[in-house]
Amino acid sequence: MTIRITGTGSYIPSIVEKNEDFYNHQFLNADGSAINSPNEVIVKKFKAITGIQERRYIKAALLNSDIAFYAAGKAIEDAKIDKESLDYIIVAHNYGDVKHNEEQSDTVPSIASRVKHLLQIKSPKCVGYDLLFGCPGWIEGVIQAKAFIASGIAKRCLVIGSETLSRVVDKHDRDSMIYSDGAGAVIVEESDEAGGILAHETATYALDEAHFIFFGETNHPEITEKRKYIKMYGRKIYEFALTNVPTALKSCLEKSGKSITDIKKILIHQANEKMDEAIVERFYKLYNMEMPEGIMPMSINTLGNSSVATVPTLFDMILKGELTDHDINKGDIIMFASVGAGMNINAIVYQY
Amino acid sequence: MTIRITGTGSYIPSIVEKNEDFYNHQFLNADGSAINSPNEVIVKKFKAITGIQERRYIKAALLNSDIAFYAAGKAIEDAKIDKESLDYIIVAHNYGDVKHNEEQSDTVPSIASRVKHLLQIKSPKCVGYDLLFGCPGWIEGVIQAKAFIASGIAKRCLVIGSETLSRVVDKHDRDSMIYSDGAGAVIVEESDEAGGILAHETATYALDEAHFIFFGETNHPEITEKRKYIKMYGRKIYEFALTNVPTALKSCLEKSGKSITDIKKILIHQANEKMDEAIVERFYKLYNMEMPEGIMPMSINTLGNSSVATVPTLFDMILKGELTDHDINKGDIIMFASVGAGMNINAIVYQY
Repeated sequence: MTIRITGTGSYIPSIVEKNEDFYNHQFLNADGSAINSPNEVIVKKFKAITGIQERRYIKAALLNSDIAFYAAGKAIEDAKIDKESLDYIIVAHNYGDVKHNEEQSDTVPSIASRVKHLLQIKSPKCVGYDLLFGCPGWIEGVIQAKAFIASGIAKRCLVIGSETLSRVVDKHDRDSMIYSDGAGAVIVEESDEAGGILAHETATYALDEAHFIFFGETNHPEITEKRKYIKMYGRKIYEFALTNVPTALKSCLEKSGKSITDIKKILIHQANEKMDEAIVERFYKLYNMEMPEGIMPMSINTLGNSSVATVPTLFDMILKGELTDHDINKGDIIMFASVGAGMNINAIVYQY
Repeated sequence: MTIRITGTGSYIPSIVEKNEDFYNHQFLNADGSAINSPNEVIVKKFKAITGIQERRYIKAALLNSDIAFYAAGKAIEDAKIDKESLDYIIVAHNYGDVKHNEEQSDTVPSIASRVKHLLQIKSPKCVGYDLLFGCPGWIEGVIQAKAFIASGIAKRCLVIGSETLSRVVDKHDRDSMIYSDGAGAVIVEESDEAGGILAHETATYALDEAHFIFFGETNHPEITEKRKYIKMYGRKIYEFALTNVPTALKSCLEKSGKSITDIKKILIHQANEKMDEAIVERFYKLYNMEMPEGIMPMSINTLGNSSVATVPTLFDMILKGELTDHDINKGDIIMFASVGAGMNINAIVYQY
């Protein structure tokens, strides 16, 4: 028995928010002090580090559960399966449904229940739950689907990563430019075909790192409301990721029995272009190799960082031929990898 | 190999909120209309249906993750294990950390990461994630631990159910009297000893039922804030539960290979005393039996409905001799069962 991904789908929100759209924002440092650069310079520097030129936001009338549903529907169609045959719907997210111009996260019922409702699935045997694991949530959902299938509890799972970070950003924080919205979904199932999930690795660093990404107040000192937003210590995350992600990838690859030269593509969480490149470079350095050209498909330039959605969206785009100069073919060995709030790190070695 | 619970712990919040403390609340119907009874009558009727005389709330300075940590620490101590040997920390909750007098749910990092941080666990191999599955979340966490262990992914898991519903109640809604705070935790691990988890059942009904429990506005028509609170259609839930939970219990029992007469105790989610009794009565009726006396230990009278925390707390109290007239001894067959937001239903047949 193998465990394979048999269908993919994604939803790219329609609102394009360009870097230029941030020129009139009042950005402040975390301590509330002014930033001694014009916004054009701040944005240029931001682009140079993160690679982000524009990002996507959902329309005001939509919710996270709606776009999760859109991506799910496409994955079900792509896999050509009967939706009633699903044993699990696993939805990775971080903030639930946050309505436009509201601040509360709505997580009851679970986003998985909402998606199941929208999909109009009747079978009570299709169990829906939500998984909170920071940005690595979608990969973790695939690992959990693997556990259900390997233990004989399930045969077919829908795993979704869906997030609307545009609803939790502090517009006075430069980091607000990083975040975007999106949803990606896959069908994971038991198979007789060779390949599929060859190995996984997962880890949580919480002793010193638990609050590197957190919920905090606006940078604007004159706004006294208690409302909190997604916040992060970028420098600490960068150092943490560079120290720990390459070794996690190596550990995962070793478990798979495959060689570093077998890897065709690494689909890494689209967190920050410079950081992602540095991680993959260090991974190859562990094998005394240079990072091969074209190993790391990127979508962050136009899609930003949509948390749990980046990896499944990237995978779907490559398979559908929507990412120039990248393809994945039958038998190819690829890796999924992510790092994010928790701090959590995970990876999968997958044979397509 | 068997999968057994080797330690339990719970945290009972210190603030006792008695039914009399609600006498001066202004209760209104869901449509904002007045209720034509004095509060003493409303409260008396409430007590007759739910069995709740008092409930527990956490102190203002505490958070959901704090009480999850307290319960977890006790379970680790009870199991006499090295905390560094844990492979997973699974935290079932619904609303994350909601601070006193604030309205936002804080879910980044996950409650599991916060608990791991508070427990000062160093090992990155101990993976923490949160599970949202309504009130049946703790039982679902045990089922997920079973999947990890049965598939060889893990050997030892900490499964916590922790919730602070006092932070999301509408004081103008009579149902606010149902909800309470609490946390329960167990260690689930691979074992060579006979017994343990014999069978499980889990289901999600979302076609018509997804929004039976939801996030809605206050019943007070003059309060125009957008803040939302836990809300439910009690009558619909009652009918749903009576229709679907008894058959789920029967299905679970059949999978276990045990007989109805083997069951020593049924630890059911403390949702509502009359509903719980009706469910268990109907379950026995499926076998043409009367519900045996003393089969269903209850804690709702003094602890209220603390969602995901009720079942592990009840289990811990019985094992620690803190519940009069109830005990569970080596070899006893018991059932865990729950129903709640999603709508989700689950059950486990367990041999102690």
